Amino acid sequence: MRSDTVFTQGLRQGVGGSPFWTVEAVRQVRYHVVSSTGLFAPGNPALMTGCPDAPMLPGDRRLVVIDENVDKLYGAEMRAYFSAHEIDATVVPLRADEAVKQWDAVSLVVDAMNDFGIDRRREPVLAVGGGVLTDVVGFAASLYRRGTPYIRIPTTLIGLVDAGVGVKTGVNYERGKNRLGTYAPATATFLDRSFLRSLPLRHISNGLAEILKMALIRSEDLFDLLESAGAEARADRMQGTTEELARAADGIITESIHLMLEELQPNLWESALERCVDYGHTFSPTLEMHALPALLHGEAVGIDMALTTAMATLRGDVSEAQAERIYGVMRTLGLPLWNEVLEVPALLGDALRDSVRHRDGQQRLPLPVGIGQHRFVNDVTETELRNATMLLRGYANGHAASAGVLVPARLSA
Amino acid sequence: MRSDTVFTQGLRQGVGGSPFWTVEAVRQVRYHVVSSTGLFAPGNPALMTGCPDAPMLPGDRRLVVIDENVDKLYGAEMRAYFSAHEIDATVVPLRADEAVKQWDAVSLVVDAMNDFGIDRRREPVLAVGGGVLTDVVGFAASLYRRGTPYIRIPTTLIGLVDAGVGVKTGVNYERGKNRLGTYAPATATFLDRSFLRSLPLRHISNGLAEILKMALIRSEDLFDLLESAGAEARADRMQGTTEELARAADGIITESIHLMLEELQPNLWESALERCVDYGHTFSPTLEMHALPALLHGEAVGIDMALTTAMATLRGDVSEAQAERIYGVMRTLGLPLWNEVLEVPALLGDALRDSVRHRDGQQRLPLPVGIGQHRFVNDVTETELRNATMLLRGYANGHAASAGVLVPARLSA
Ligand SMILES: NC(=O)c1ccc[n+]([C@@H]2O[C@H](COP(=O)([O-])OP(=O)(O)OC[C@H]3O[C@@H](n4cnc5c(N)ncnc54)[C@H](O)[C@@H]3O)[C@@H](O)[C@H]2O)c1
Ligand SMILES: NC(=O)c1ccc[n+]([C@@H]2O[C@H](COP(=O)([O-])OP(=O)(O)OC[C@H]3O[C@@H](n4cnc5c(N)ncnc54)[C@H](O)[C@@H]3O)[C@@H](O)[C@H]2O)c1
Repeated sequence: MRSDTVFTQGLRQGVGGSPFWTVEAVRQVRYHVVSSTGLFAPGNPALMTGCPDAPMLPGDRRLVVIDENVDKLYGAEMRAYFSAHEIDATVVPLRADEAVKQWDAVSLVVDAMNDFGIDRRREPVLAVGGGVLTDVVGFAASLYRRGTPYIRIPTTLIGLVDAGVGVKTGVNYERGKNRLGTYAPATATFLDRSFLRSLPLRHISNGLAEILKMALIRSEDLFDLLESAGAEARADRMQGTTEELARAADGIITESIHLMLEELQPNLWESALERCVDYGHTFSPTLEMHALPALLHGEAVGIDMALTTAMATLRGDVSEAQAERIYGVMRTLGLPLWNEVLEVPALLGDALRDSVRHRDGQQRLPLPVGIGQHRFVNDVTETELRNATMLLRGYANGHAASAGVLVPARLSA
Repeated sequence: MRSDTVFTQGLRQGVGGSPFWTVEAVRQVRYHVVSSTGLFAPGNPALMTGCPDAPMLPGDRRLVVIDENVDKLYGAEMRAYFSAHEIDATVVPLRADEAVKQWDAVSLVVDAMNDFGIDRRREPVLAVGGGVLTDVVGFAASLYRRGTPYIRIPTTLIGLVDAGVGVKTGVNYERGKNRLGTYAPATATFLDRSFLRSLPLRHISNGLAEILKMALIRSEDLFDLLESAGAEARADRMQGTTEELARAADGIITESIHLMLEELQPNLWESALERCVDYGHTFSPTLEMHALPALLHGEAVGIDMALTTAMATLRGDVSEAQAERIYGVMRTLGLPLWNEVLEVPALLGDALRDSVRHRDGQQRLPLPVGIGQHRFVNDVTETELRNATMLLRGYANGHAASAGVLVPARLSA
């Protein structure tokens, strides 16, 4: 992957005239994603020695920041694990939901790091919780003394397949979704789907939205798997209660992560602005923050995908039959196709403009082509947004045809 | 420089057992430091086209965050420059001194970026001011949408030779000096020593402290230059009023920057913890924050250098004659050798422990060896700190011998 890239290092000084220097340097980054079931089972060595770059030794100290809800469910088990392995853990429970994903939460983590007197190289902070918790702790760690390592233990499905495996950290700033943040991977992320047993179904659906995203743009196989087994795996909370359910849960999660990492690795710092993993993330940041707390992150992503599927249908890139399948899968996964926020005047246009600012002046909007492929477009108009919204309303009400939107003849045939 | 380093990129998946992924990627960084006198003179093209990676074109918009004191002095000239070159500049004056170098200042810059509706790739933020202003704006820009480019125009001597040419940004957190920050170079820094004409002499001295630092650890030539011409160049505020003063000012500034960049380039992210440019920065962060606002940054660095020069003298690495020269130069540059904060019980020990936490559990203290060289030590004790403090008090009072500290016989001879 891009192995032909030439990197340059050094200090060059201009000749003649006023002094002029150019500094060039190269930074190598490496991180690990490790799966293991039952991370806090006393006999499981994964957290201690499962990652070569992040070993824990008996006698080590660790600062552990944990989502307060997760602490209530798994805190006792976790503390027992640390005692059994002679880890001197200072556990700090933190409220971590979208409404408090702001600078104040980062500040609380910084206070905890100060109080702990963390050694910036030897004592990675452990972050245990959903995407909000790991984003906030990762952000704080990445800033503390300009970079203190951290380790993630995601406990939600979004965490397992998305927030926990990439390199992005951050918080919202007022209504700006993830407006402030850094690119700072956790040294290691430990994935354990058994945490999902306590997750409300709505949050399972929320994670399935990001998985569906990967399927729609990258993999018809994954889509087929979601279509055939997604609903059951969801009802089972990905616990693999039967062998078949285990195969489904593992297949869905592992394939989704693998596709995600394949997309992230060559573009870790998002220097390339055409990112297919941005699918579902063009309108959703604005919708999510506008509707807060009504819409979860994945739900907003789902609505964005529903809308852009309608756009692709109007463009003739997705057939009506394919659109029906997509909306059908969304329904069985428990994802809303529609939210009244879609009708807030000018909001979709504002959302698109904000994404354009983020993407160097162009829309670079990933749109599905059939199922499992995509292309980027730059020519979306307000009219197209209105038409797609109308078409989607029709689908959401179960009667696309009567929505009065002209679907290209060759497709509606 | 380290051209033999091997970088690896790619996604590796573990075989057998639970899924295990390793992500590796390489990031190339490049930035420029450009000198030019009279940046805001209407005919000077430097800001428009002086840096290939940061051109400004007539019609461009720019957000300019400027130290409010600098705005009073140079704001009119700057606005006229932008008008003349058809740059649509939104100028935001900001209070920027050490006492307000906290998150709230970052937040004000973020507000300004939000209001401006900045395009994260095409519209680098301009930061005009001293080290506080450029550190705060650089920090805000580096976080905004996880990285928005910025350009620095330093207006203090510390800015010209240090804060403006490296890659560090950040703010204090409570009493923790630069506790939060990022490594994020400005795309370009434009250096113009003519801004120093309005800088209080105390702040010229403040910058000379960082220059003296480079001399003490890296260059006897630069030290000689400071000894022979530093006082006059200081009184002239580095303006080069005569040809000789111009040669001195340019020599001092350019040589100091060049040495600094030579040290920074191979270690931009401070992965190597033995950094000779940390000289003067072991005790000073704690001293500066404790004494705030009594001590300026460079003054605290100066006191740290005075103390560590005394340590090196006690160790026999710096002769008494060399120490006298060093303290003599500090005096002529207007730098204090002593501050009562040195006598706050336990403070030096605390400061050392904090640096140890920053340096992966070891002191890694750079100490001068003669003039222009250095070595790193890890065995400083509280007793040594006390003895060095006593010796320094003697030097500061002008009677080292009577301080009653045993200077090694072979040196005091
Ligand atoms: N960094 C990234 O690359 C990235 C990627 C995708 C999403 N995100 C971010 O992730 C966030 C969404 O993450 P999320 O969906 O995990 O939300 P979340 O962190 O708010 O967690 C959802 C809820 O579930 C609770 N919870 C967590 N684990 C639980 C468990 N095992 N059992 C029961 N309850 C549990 C939490 O307390 C919370 O109330 C968003 O802020 C989004 O921006 C980041
Ligand atoms: N990022 C880095 O690598 C780095 C390196 C060294 C120092 N620093 C930081 O830099 C800060 C110190 O910088 P500083 O010494 O420039 O202080 P400063 O930014 O506080 O400026 C000093 C004072 O001079 C005023 N001023 C600025 N330019 C002026 C001019 N041309 N004429 C008259 N007055 C002017 C300012 O308003 C301020 O009151 C510290 O916070 C330190 O941590 C950072």
